[in-house]
Amino acid sequence: MKVTVCRKEHFNAAHRLHNAEWSNTQNQEIFGKCNNANYHGHNYELIVKVTGEPDKQSGYVMDMKLLSGLIERNILDRFDHKNLNLDTEEFNNLIPTAENIAVVIWNILREQIDHKLELKVVLYETERNFVEYPSN
Amino acid sequence: MKVTVCRKEHFNAAHRLHNAEWSNTQNQEIFGKCNNANYHGHNYELIVKVTGEPDKQSGYVMDMKLLSGLIERNILDRFDHKNLNLDTEEFNNLIPTAENIAVVIWNILREQIDHKLELKVVLYETERNFVEYPSN
Amino acid sequence: MKVTVCRKEHFNAAHRLHNAEWSNTQNQEIFGKCNNANYHGHNYELIVKVTGEPDKQSGYVMDMKLLSGLIERNILDRFDHKNLNLDTEEFNNLIPTAENIAVVIWNILREQIDHKLELKVVLYETERNFVEYPSN
Amino acid sequence: MKVTVCRKEHFNAAHRLHNAEWSNTQNQEIFGKCNNANYHGHNYELIVKVTGEPDKQSGYVMDMKLLSGLIERNILDRFDHKNLNLDTEEFNNLIPTAENIAVVIWNILREQIDHKLELKVVLYETERNFVEYPSN
Amino acid sequence: MKVTVCRKEHFNAAHRLHNAEWSNTQNQEIFGKCNNANYHGHNYELIVKVTGEPDKQSGYVMDMKLLSGLIERNILDRFDHKNLNLDTEEFNNLIPTAENIAVVIWNILREQIDHKLELKVVLYETERNFVEYPSN
Amino acid sequence: MKVTVCRKEHFNAAHRLHNAEWSNTQNQEIFGKCNNANYHGHNYELIVKVTGEPDKQSGYVMDMKLLSGLIERNILDRFDHKNLNLDTEEFNNLIPTAENIAVVIWNILREQIDHKLELKVVLYETERNFVEYPSN
Repeated sequence: MKVTVCRKEHFNAAHRLHNAEWSNTQNQEIFGKCNNANYHGHNYELIVKVTGEPDKQSGYVMDMKLLSGLIERNILDRFDHKNLNLDTEEFNNLIPTAENIAVVIWNILREQIDHKLELKVVLYETERNFVEYPSN
Repeated sequence: MKVTVCRKEHFNAAHRLHNAEWSNTQNQEIFGKCNNANYHGHNYELIVKVTGEPDKQSGYVMDMKLLSGLIERNILDRFDHKNLNLDTEEFNNLIPTAENIAVVIWNILREQIDHKLELKVVLYETERNFVEYPSN
Repeated sequence: MKVTVCRKEHFNAAHRLHNAEWSNTQNQEIFGKCNNANYHGHNYELIVKVTGEPDKQSGYVMDMKLLSGLIERNILDRFDHKNLNLDTEEFNNLIPTAENIAVVIWNILREQIDHKLELKVVLYETERNFVEYPSN
Repeated sequence: MKVTVCRKEHFNAAHRLHNAEWSNTQNQEIFGKCNNANYHGHNYELIVKVTGEPDKQSGYVMDMKLLSGLIERNILDRFDHKNLNLDTEEFNNLIPTAENIAVVIWNILREQIDHKLELKVVLYETERNFVEYPSN
Repeated sequence: MKVTVCRKEHFNAAHRLHNAEWSNTQNQEIFGKCNNANYHGHNYELIVKVTGEPDKQSGYVMDMKLLSGLIERNILDRFDHKNLNLDTEEFNNLIPTAENIAVVIWNILREQIDHKLELKVVLYETERNFVEYPSN
Repeated sequence: MKVTVCRKEHFNAAHRLHNAEWSNTQNQEIFGKCNNANYHGHNYELIVKVTGEPDKQSGYVMDMKLLSGLIERNILDRFDHKNLNLDTEEFNNLIPTAENIAVVIWNILREQIDHKLELKVVLYETERNFVEYPSN
């Protein structure tokens, strides 16, 4: 009898999609406007999904307040109001596509959440572009 | 060739998270503001997902109007504009966390829907807190 | 050159619509399900709108962080996860309809916000029912 | 390390649910208002989900701009501002229920997207009625 | 002390923008895809706003349940799941642009609502296109 | 008989709130995280509202397709996927607060839209922070 509990948070960040091993032309060709040299930005909406059996005593799979605090300390404090390329070590050598950001967030949270619980991340870059990791 | 059809409904209810076997301090510690003695409340958004093969004649997995009526009679009439702790027998001895409410709703609907069809429930307690049962 | 800045916050509360001077039948007739004796509840979405001239130095009409903090201390701390009828003095003798809640919130905030600035409140009781005060 | 990338698009179309092999009474009984002889319509919201491994060089599972263009040329140009029953060959002999539209869209897109990538379609007929194909 | 109460409803309809006094070329030029001969359709979201003083006894400007019922009988029963051009007398000789639909709805409702109360209509044709009548 | 027609568009941009005449401490004090030296960013949602009398022939106040194109050429092409502080002359010497961005957009569009028509701009910086210009 496993239930999934989900918590939605958000952060605002600047980023640029750029592969330093490619020519400018190639970067422009692949990343288009997202390659703009001076960065652009997004309101990222993040949904963290945790799956497990509800505790008999509390009726909770995981306390949403604890989950929210954990996301705040580990993800929002790190990425909110930051330039992902310049201000974070995670994306120093990793292109901050939505795919890569989702995987990075999952890896950070996976360390913080009881391994009896399954973990999934959904990340909205815009209302029309979003990613899920891991895939179902 | 299975398709999932989904119907969203909502109900408004009061509830309190409280474990009668715990001390007040322990209840306060675990449930925080949700333990408020005089209850608080939510607009619950409920998504019911039914999976099966579309009927060759009608093109329907299940008629959404029938599904909507079935949710209304079995769930909304029971929980809408109610105090879940005081007005419903389901939560007389069960803490009405989002997890438990979703499982209770699934159990009620499971009896009403053809067993050839799979059933899943998503319940939003707030826009930022929601649960899924069963987990994918 | 006046600009309106708007901040959205939310709180969850229980309430009951009941006029103690009316008979039960009359209360039932007017308030229907909203008269349920044991309360029901809502996720209230609150939008506070403040109008004035942007400051030349900061470009702000009013700092949204300050506005958000002011709403939190004066409104959310008072009403969030409360039973409006039982836990608040504002609705001890005032029926907590959306109309009355909006007027009460406006009166509280009006005291806290510079009188050079105009103030307006929008309150969503559900996604489909909301009120504005004052009217445009 | 599979990630799912999702792109949301929309189109507006008219349709009518009608089975030519049934009597008018039977059509009315099953399809109700959706059987209206002169058609009615919807704003369809379409989410296309593509699953695969992010490319090491670009960080993309699939370029969302390419995915968006592919949906535009193959789905929107075909169905947007059309009468599904009269203006499209796909629904000449197939009842345009949300279930059938989702399957048709999936079949069209499946031809256009690299078979290493998994494909899923979510189609909202209204905010409260939507379908997923294939089911999870 | 005037408060505005707002009720959101929706209906689904087909329509075509076409001026019978114009040539096909001119219709195509002005209305583009919206001129499609076989109609297209929308999920119309309708917000009805009523302004007045809350009643001292009930705390209501106007009972939202009554307002909802009044919209259902006068607007939804007339336009929902209809072809606006063919199935309604209102748009027999009037092009069903969002502007005209909003004015027609306002005129119908104005007859049904106490003239002490001000009335305003907001109509969403899509999430990105909407109209307000009267203008503020 | 004036009607307001509204068109919603969006753009993604990076920005930084910083007053060059202030000390770093003062900038930090007033703008907090929004002062981050390497910029952060947002998905800006822009609603442009145009008010006038519907044309008798077309039923349009203003053709939404033309309005959309006009916003694209004058606003999106200028600000989308840009760093507002570095890549645009408008914010070279003007702090890109939501208030100032809304006024700048209004001034640009005002030149492009028939002066018989009234113009209003609503700009969402996040779902919870937005501004309106001019104020009602």
